[in-house]
Amino acid sequence: MIRMLYLLVKPEGMSDETFRAECQRHDEMSRDVPGLHKYEVRLVAEQPTDTHVPFFDIGHVDAIGECWFENEAAYDSYLASDIRKAWFEHGKTFIGQLKPFRTAPVSGSDNSAG
Amino acid sequence: MIRMLYLLVKPEGMSDETFRAECQRHDEMSRDVPGLHKYEVRLVAEQPTDTHVPFFDIGHVDAIGECWFENEAAYDSYLASDIRKAWFEHGKTFIGQLKPFRTAPVSGSDNSAG
Repeated sequence: MIRMLYLLVKPEGMSDETFRAECQRHDEMSRDVPGLHKYEVRLVAEQPTDTHVPFFDIGHVDAIGECWFENEAAYDSYLASDIRKAWFEHGKTFIGQLKPFRTAPVSGSDNSAG
Repeated sequence: MIRMLYLLVKPEGMSDETFRAECQRHDEMSRDVPGLHKYEVRLVAEQPTDTHVPFFDIGHVDAIGECWFENEAAYDSYLASDIRKAWFEHGKTFIGQLKPFRTAPVSGSDNSAG
């Protein structure tokens, strides 16, 4: 399973309610995107700073998204899809800044159900 | 379901292999922690910068962890647990910097299976 995680920051001046509604719309749109096995987006509710190890201060984040793809072929079909492109266009309307990560299991195998 | 997500940065000078091994050990230790419904930690494999919206530049991240708790009572028992405290002590040995997020569903309900 290929997994991409995203930190989302809302555009300056956008209300929390508008951002929440657009995240919900983005979640609904995700169900039609070819090659995308699963999509999840969650709002950031709290950002504790009282960590037991040194705090990593990256500033404010508004939401966290994650995409699952079954394999590279599915990911390629996703990238090529016009529906995916329209989904990204919607993203441009409510995502002010984006930090993507491709993640991998600590075991070293990317073939788990994960 | 209560969910906490964490960005982990390894300490300066620690090798990728040592960090990976300690993440794996942390994952194994998590299975004994009271109140912790599920724990997952994954390595950051790629950090693309060619985003379709402005890039959120937070510097390098080495791993992403997530904790699931069934409810506030479970979370409280987790916080009070000596096994949890020992688990955090292990965290101090391989986590150089940490950024926690408490996340919530976009629907506004925290009672989903999520």
